[in-house]
Amino acid sequence: MTIAMIGTWRMAETGITPAMAQLRQGKSAGDALVTAIQAVEDDPFYQSVGFGGLPNAAGVVETDAAYMDGDTFQIGALAGARDIAHPIAVARALSQEPANNLLVGPGATEYASTHGFPLKNMLTEKAAKQWAAKRQELTAKDLNPYDGHDTVGMVALDAGGHMTVGTSTSGLFMKRTGRVGDSPLPGAGYYVDSTIGGAAATGMGEDLMKASLCYQTVQLMGNGLSASEALREAVYPFIARLAALGQHPREFSYVALSPSGDWGIATNVEFSFAVAQDDGKTQIYLATPNGDHPDIQPVTAAWLAKEDAGR
Amino acid sequence: MTIAMIGTWRMAETGITPAMAQLRQGKSAGDALVTAIQAVEDDPFYQSVGFGGLPNAAGVVETDAAYMDGDTFQIGALAGARDIAHPIAVARALSQEPANNLLVGPGATEYASTHGFPLKNMLTEKAAKQWAAKRQELTAKDLNPYDGHDTVGMVALDAGGHMTVGTSTSGLFMKRTGRVGDSPLPGAGYYVDSTIGGAAATGMGEDLMKASLCYQTVQLMGNGLSASEALREAVYPFIARLAALGQHPREFSYVALSPSGDWGIATNVEFSFAVAQDDGKTQIYLATPNGDHPDIQPVTAAWLAKEDAGR
Repeated sequence: MTIAMIGTWRMAETGITPAMAQLRQGKSAGDALVTAIQAVEDDPFYQSVGFGGLPNAAGVVETDAAYMDGDTFQIGALAGARDIAHPIAVARALSQEPANNLLVGPGATEYASTHGFPLKNMLTEKAAKQWAAKRQELTAKDLNPYDGHDTVGMVALDAGGHMTVGTSTSGLFMKRTGRVGDSPLPGAGYYVDSTIGGAAATGMGEDLMKASLCYQTVQLMGNGLSASEALREAVYPFIARLAALGQHPREFSYVALSPSGDWGIATNVEFSFAVAQDDGKTQIYLATPNGDHPDIQPVTAAWLAKEDAGR
Repeated sequence: MTIAMIGTWRMAETGITPAMAQLRQGKSAGDALVTAIQAVEDDPFYQSVGFGGLPNAAGVVETDAAYMDGDTFQIGALAGARDIAHPIAVARALSQEPANNLLVGPGATEYASTHGFPLKNMLTEKAAKQWAAKRQELTAKDLNPYDGHDTVGMVALDAGGHMTVGTSTSGLFMKRTGRVGDSPLPGAGYYVDSTIGGAAATGMGEDLMKASLCYQTVQLMGNGLSASEALREAVYPFIARLAALGQHPREFSYVALSPSGDWGIATNVEFSFAVAQDDGKTQIYLATPNGDHPDIQPVTAAWLAKEDAGR
């Protein structure tokens, strides 16, 4: 059996590299997924996930995360959660509860606290400064405040053919208190069935939740389509439908992986992602939208240096 | 053009009857849906929706609701919300925002408060007494606390062919603080496309969220299946899949409606629902599971008298 992982954005590589080492040692897709996403959550350089994520309009970091097991369909998720150091680890624990698997707001923090998970102030000095500057700018001009909303979403496949999917994000910069996007929402933000494959989304949650495109992608893979074909058939017609309604669809990006290691992406914006298979290294790619056939190239050293500048 | 509404459980009739009068007067599917669901939210006799809903483990009523427009795919939803008199009206207002369409926890109440929606203590004396009794019983024995979880979910069709869907619930009795089920989750709890039809779910949210069956039902209707056929093809195979995994699937019930007025239901438990079409009266039906072909009969006067006893 093959092993593989795919994840959204350049940041995914930070987590996939140590997680693939675990998969090679025979660890489960559940362990690898949590290792990978937790590494991204812990890294304050990434300002849309976990520690160092950009805060909401009130200056508070609120996180959303989800975990799904493709063998059992068990789901755990949290949304609008504060002070949880590792949202993905809490989501996985929630997936193992007999009920109360999706917790929002103070109840999510209460669960994490009473179940021994580390709590942490997720606001960094850097993020607090950006919030203060943005606030001043928004007061001075009449700007659309919603910039960053890059979710890390990953699909993992272990040597036993077990698949998992997970997402984690601090959501829209300057969002309203309690605002939630697609990341904790099954079907829209993620879906996985170990017998077929998995998919995860990133982009403007308010648009991504208008259709269950991760669920549909997995269904289409179940009908025999490759990961790329399934994403193409699910994602682009819906974006076109929104455009035809005059809705100016915002960012949509997806990754998908099958149990054979076949992978694909779909996007309507420039989109980086990371893939690792078997004993190969983690490769970061850059996709450029081109109708429904994105151009995909390995990133260059120059691109990576620019992306990682200021680290 | 025809007009029609369908809604989950006997309680739906309380709202559909006044809402159908509005549809007959030419009002929109949006107005009718809010009228219908708000009538159920206002009625303290129904203990799983709105005012009089049963509280969480901490003794607090927390509500979830969603509104979706089938012409535009705009969605508004709230989850784990306290003190909001009419969750469905707030969900509709959220669907009209350019972003921040799904709000959870204190942020949802803040939005309702700052946008002039009435606030209300949703706990009735009757519900508080039931909570106290249940708490005592749970302390005395080791019982599964999760009884009531009946969401009101409705689909509306107006004379212009415009369709909407909405859900509202106080969720599981004795749920954890912040617990959310499928009701505010698009695809799992509800979906509508005015060109195809709409669907809504009720049952054990933790299981219903394991697949986007409302989304899939609408897709299947788009492939030419009737509402009944689409529900049959989407719902029962997934329940069978969970059963094959040894998961003892809990309650699944769905209603669906097409723009021609064709309707259907699927359920694995005894399930009442209400339907109204054109100028006919609202009919309450009782469905009894029978494989994937539920037996559907109009309710008897005796059944209704028993259901409404104690009002």
